[in-house]
Amino acid sequence: MQWNYEQPVAIRFGEGRVSEIGEIAGSLGVGDGVVVADRFFDEGGVTDAMIAGSDGALVASFSDFSPNPDVTEVDACAALLRRVHAGFVVALGGGSAMDVAKAAASICLTDEPIAAYHGTGRTMPTKHLPIIAVPTTAGTGSEVTCVAVLSDRAQGKKAPIVSDGFFPTCAIVDPEMTYSVPPHTTASTGMDVLSQAIEGYWSKGHQPICDACAVHAARLVFEYLPRAVADGRNDHEARSKMCEASVIAGLAFTLPKTTSSHACSFPLTNLLGIPHGEACGLTLDWFTRINADAQGGRVQRFASLLGFADADAMADAIAELKRTIGLRTGLRDLALNDRQIADLVRISRHPNLYNNPVDITDEMLETMYRHLARAD
Amino acid sequence: MQWNYEQPVAIRFGEGRVSEIGEIAGSLGVGDGVVVADRFFDEGGVTDAMIAGSDGALVASFSDFSPNPDVTEVDACAALLRRVHAGFVVALGGGSAMDVAKAAASICLTDEPIAAYHGTGRTMPTKHLPIIAVPTTAGTGSEVTCVAVLSDRAQGKKAPIVSDGFFPTCAIVDPEMTYSVPPHTTASTGMDVLSQAIEGYWSKGHQPICDACAVHAARLVFEYLPRAVADGRNDHEARSKMCEASVIAGLAFTLPKTTSSHACSFPLTNLLGIPHGEACGLTLDWFTRINADAQGGRVQRFASLLGFADADAMADAIAELKRTIGLRTGLRDLALNDRQIADLVRISRHPNLYNNPVDITDEMLETMYRHLARAD
Repeated sequence: MQWNYEQPVAIRFGEGRVSEIGEIAGSLGVGDGVVVADRFFDEGGVTDAMIAGSDGALVASFSDFSPNPDVTEVDACAALLRRVHAGFVVALGGGSAMDVAKAAASICLTDEPIAAYHGTGRTMPTKHLPIIAVPTTAGTGSEVTCVAVLSDRAQGKKAPIVSDGFFPTCAIVDPEMTYSVPPHTTASTGMDVLSQAIEGYWSKGHQPICDACAVHAARLVFEYLPRAVADGRNDHEARSKMCEASVIAGLAFTLPKTTSSHACSFPLTNLLGIPHGEACGLTLDWFTRINADAQGGRVQRFASLLGFADADAMADAIAELKRTIGLRTGLRDLALNDRQIADLVRISRHPNLYNNPVDITDEMLETMYRHLARAD
Repeated sequence: MQWNYEQPVAIRFGEGRVSEIGEIAGSLGVGDGVVVADRFFDEGGVTDAMIAGSDGALVASFSDFSPNPDVTEVDACAALLRRVHAGFVVALGGGSAMDVAKAAASICLTDEPIAAYHGTGRTMPTKHLPIIAVPTTAGTGSEVTCVAVLSDRAQGKKAPIVSDGFFPTCAIVDPEMTYSVPPHTTASTGMDVLSQAIEGYWSKGHQPICDACAVHAARLVFEYLPRAVADGRNDHEARSKMCEASVIAGLAFTLPKTTSSHACSFPLTNLLGIPHGEACGLTLDWFTRINADAQGGRVQRFASLLGFADADAMADAIAELKRTIGLRTGLRDLALNDRQIADLVRISRHPNLYNNPVDITDEMLETMYRHLARAD
């Protein structure tokens, strides 16, 4: 068996550790940091509090970007980084803030726009400002990955950029940042964590260190996600365990990559507006049954390591989890027509689909989407 | 809960991958590498074959060091590195080669002897030549740690040096390197892997990513070590799985550190000549029973994740494993006297003992050693 492993991100996990930004900057010998933060945190005063608590290490913030960040927004962020002669970047938020911060921290050391590297096949320069990633959901796992997903609305394209320079130097995973996340977002982002773990495990690119992380993370989601959704403001143990699950699921999928459920999530989100994690979860039990006996029974083994009788029982548990936490288990309310189903099938043929251990045909996708279209 | 994680070593795992040294040196932009290899490989022609297959990336070798390498041997290696203007170092062997290579790759960039940093409390400079670590046993885990253990025979001391500069840039874990390891060494080094995994899990410094790795590695040892011992030359699957277990156990213990069984292994090795891994295993089932209910039942949970009914059943399985693979389960043949037992107790009070989740008293150690002294 052949596999590679690489995980250069140092992780600091724990309640209140977001206060260590000044110390980390000091140990890296950098200053004049800029916080790239989702607007929500900017408006809520979290960004200002972070700057005030940084012992002078942070000097400015940038939040002028959209949920699916555009290349022009990355260029604007890079211009700010150049203007203040920034020494490092803090990415505070969900996936979007990380996407902008990663791309801007590299491109700001060049005189080019990010579009020169977006979907062009050109390799990003690996020189970059150090990035400290502070996730605010559990979550995307983006704090331990080297991917940034950007849109170019003028060109009508959305694509990931992968670069070793995008690995954050340090991830601060502070569960307190997630206490105020509302229940439905907690449920959807938590289902993304489960999808990352399970898909990382059964991906054609699976490898043992990521397997170990996948088992650990998935077990935590089944145990703690219902509690984090039910009382996320007060159940700090559940929040902490979900943050643990999120960063460890990040380790589990970043090398093997995600597969069928992520591939299908893209049209479900883009055409039907279903949040990303909820969209991933919608097909996760279906693909669990399809993949059950692939790879010499690895998914059966995964289910048994999690304490399930078999892969079918795990699929049942995923369906039950979705009902418990208030996520969709079907699409009947949307009254999809044949053309919409055909679009879902067509746009599911995303590169991630080819990481799935079982070859997925259009017929299989159509059967699945027709089933979901009838289901509550 | 608060924890940190760091694992900067890139891992390349797989049969035949030792041939990638030239390519790795090329990607790092370095040349004129020196192989630091256990003498066995030098005499057996393995070192020469590695140099010949490196596309010119390797230019010399060094094997003039003992199983417990001395500071003077590190200085001699550093002198060679300076003389050939080495660009990188390959460490080929078990723990000793790694110890020498790590220390020499740092100290060669200074004009000081390693003794200036050995047991003196001075922090090593972190600047170092890139190290490619190639373990030849499964194993020490040293290929993913930042520790080098050195002796200073002139001063009568043996101590570890810890430095971020000691992390190899890359570990090549090539199971083919282990095919010729004889059965008893396979058994002993495999038992070291199990001890690292179990002790990393129950250490006071435990943390979740290492927990996940510990569970994965320990499960593999129970399943594959008997096969690797029984037919290590032909059972390539068992060798591969034990190499996987070894590198992942390295990840499992390097941050939490080992505990009681490692602490007790030192006098068992130094006073009685029992090989390191066999010495660790000798007390592992005893401490499993002692630690069974510590930390709110974490060891019970570990046992159950491995498929055992409880921690006691896991301790029984450790004892059974030792019998199966021909390792000691007692010391009766050595006819220890009271003074020897007192020495074992006294010298077991190593710093690692204080990482054990249950406080270990001298009385507990004496009870254990008297039990072992009577046992076959």
